[in-house]
Amino acid sequence: MNDLNESQQLPDYQGLACPLPLPHNEQIVLGHGSGGKMTHDLIRRVFQKYLSSPALLAGNDFARLALPELPESQGKLIVSTDSHVVFPLFFPGGDIGRLAVAGTVNDVAVSGATPLYLTASFILEEGFPVALLEQILASMQKTAEEAGVTFVAGDTKVVERGKMDGVFINTTGFGWLPSDCDIHGANAQPGDLVLISGTMGDHGMAILTARGDLGIQSPIQSDVAPLNQLIKQLLKAAPHTHVLRDPTRGGVATTLNEIASQSQVGILLDEMALPVNPAVRSMCEMLGFDPLYVANEGKILAIVPESEAHTALEALREHPHGAQAQIIGKVIAENPGKVLMRTVIGSTRIVESLSGEILPRIC
Amino acid sequence: MNDLNESQQLPDYQGLACPLPLPHNEQIVLGHGSGGKMTHDLIRRVFQKYLSSPALLAGNDFARLALPELPESQGKLIVSTDSHVVFPLFFPGGDIGRLAVAGTVNDVAVSGATPLYLTASFILEEGFPVALLEQILASMQKTAEEAGVTFVAGDTKVVERGKMDGVFINTTGFGWLPSDCDIHGANAQPGDLVLISGTMGDHGMAILTARGDLGIQSPIQSDVAPLNQLIKQLLKAAPHTHVLRDPTRGGVATTLNEIASQSQVGILLDEMALPVNPAVRSMCEMLGFDPLYVANEGKILAIVPESEAHTALEALREHPHGAQAQIIGKVIAENPGKVLMRTVIGSTRIVESLSGEILPRIC
Repeated sequence: MNDLNESQQLPDYQGLACPLPLPHNEQIVLGHGSGGKMTHDLIRRVFQKYLSSPALLAGNDFARLALPELPESQGKLIVSTDSHVVFPLFFPGGDIGRLAVAGTVNDVAVSGATPLYLTASFILEEGFPVALLEQILASMQKTAEEAGVTFVAGDTKVVERGKMDGVFINTTGFGWLPSDCDIHGANAQPGDLVLISGTMGDHGMAILTARGDLGIQSPIQSDVAPLNQLIKQLLKAAPHTHVLRDPTRGGVATTLNEIASQSQVGILLDEMALPVNPAVRSMCEMLGFDPLYVANEGKILAIVPESEAHTALEALREHPHGAQAQIIGKVIAENPGKVLMRTVIGSTRIVESLSGEILPRIC
Repeated sequence: MNDLNESQQLPDYQGLACPLPLPHNEQIVLGHGSGGKMTHDLIRRVFQKYLSSPALLAGNDFARLALPELPESQGKLIVSTDSHVVFPLFFPGGDIGRLAVAGTVNDVAVSGATPLYLTASFILEEGFPVALLEQILASMQKTAEEAGVTFVAGDTKVVERGKMDGVFINTTGFGWLPSDCDIHGANAQPGDLVLISGTMGDHGMAILTARGDLGIQSPIQSDVAPLNQLIKQLLKAAPHTHVLRDPTRGGVATTLNEIASQSQVGILLDEMALPVNPAVRSMCEMLGFDPLYVANEGKILAIVPESEAHTALEALREHPHGAQAQIIGKVIAENPGKVLMRTVIGSTRIVESLSGEILPRIC
């Protein structure tokens, strides 16, 4: 029928109108969804070749946009989008609905903006129980109320049974940024301190437990939560905060590497100061994971001038989502683009970005 | 293991943390994604129970939003979202990339707004060829250039092989609406005329051909195209246009029923005036479809005061995407909420919304 060798035979989703043969054999692998090096490589090599703009190239989790005919002194529109394919749909501490709302609210909030509006778009598998959909929607409603955001537009598509896995949810969030706020990934300055709002890796380990594959029981709950109120409290205490980000896919290590690279600074972590829930620590040790690379869905990293760092820490600790906040490191001029860690035994090592995939469909 | 009967056994996507047993056995069916009566019923009974706001209840394809601290005299933000699961990915006249851009641009443009920005979120199946992804991205880039919109935020997730079908794309679009523009579905007035920008059903029949299941060859091309330039030209000629909408899922019949219901007016169509491509007409006759219910992706319906209808028609016909535009009916005070049609043989019949599903994964 055609000249393709077996590895090039395409499934029937392609359609007869697709140009053939394909110029190369590279395939998408799970690591392309990890949020780590492979994701960044795919974005740089493939996506940016076609879809590019100053907002996309800035490399933040949000876009900061001027609106026509509005002077920038009135503020900017903040936008962020995420599709959620977490498996399983329900896990200790949350579900895909809570995750879809909190994830996008947090990506808007780390710009310093007030999240206002969400869109929600559902792809449903034929045969999916409507009662389960209702539980997911109820969770979205509750989380949106918690965050103070409103759903303004939606969409529903249905795919044949067996052609997808239950439900996927896209949320896109909109917020409004006052003109005097300038928080973004390229803004870290030598001398700043690095804060985290609580323990690392809870979400990833809760998902792994929920899958049940490993026959492991654990008390670990996902930390999934909307953080805009926590961030508001933080910014009141530390109005000159330079960078905020939520360390989701790829964990704290990958997120800090992104910031180090965007800001062209070094970041030096203190291993002793890194907060980890004991149950997460022992599960990670058993399975060979490093909590620095495990996803969080209810934590922020804040990079704050030293003069405001201690009031920032107090403000975080006053909020239930920030009770275990810590100062975990500092920004340095040396080693620009790199994250280093002073280890428990006193040596210093480089902390790389996540390279492959440790846990697919974490969010 | 548990008390569920066989029909209640859930696939393993549910997760151990899901509350059981479920209160009822209703399942999602393909018709819930049709865009017709079953979709509206699911939205009303299930989605609106949890996610609701004035913008969602307005029932337009877009949300019209005020921004804080900006007086409404400066304009409003327009937002629309759509997830695209079209099968196959490539079809005569287009592909999922062109569809994802044009579909969302059109949903923003029918508010009267200028579409400005898009977000794009990809869910990819493990094993998907990167070269095919590049073809889809190139098509998105080309269509975005045609529409004059910029991509500002993105996301990529990867799902295990066999757990989804190739690629799904969410696009969320936003634009800015001048404060003097008030085009929406509840705005049709008795005496207005109803225009369509060209032939009905081309997209749906192109997709059906592309699937190849029926062994049918046809010259039918999808009409998928961004229509914001066409709409701009129309609004210049007919600045008092009352309603604009793109008749996608559910076709012209379903879209006009929505407008009749939102505006509480009757709509009387003239069957003789309805433009249908001869190849689409014969394929529909052969397969028992009515072109009134078949999806379009490059057409608009415009409801315009009679005084501006003829200049509107000329403006549409001057644009390549509107060359076959027609006046197809009028808005009447009688039969509020209903669409009627004067048939070729002179009788009048009711034109209902699409009830079930005629062609899943059309967009």
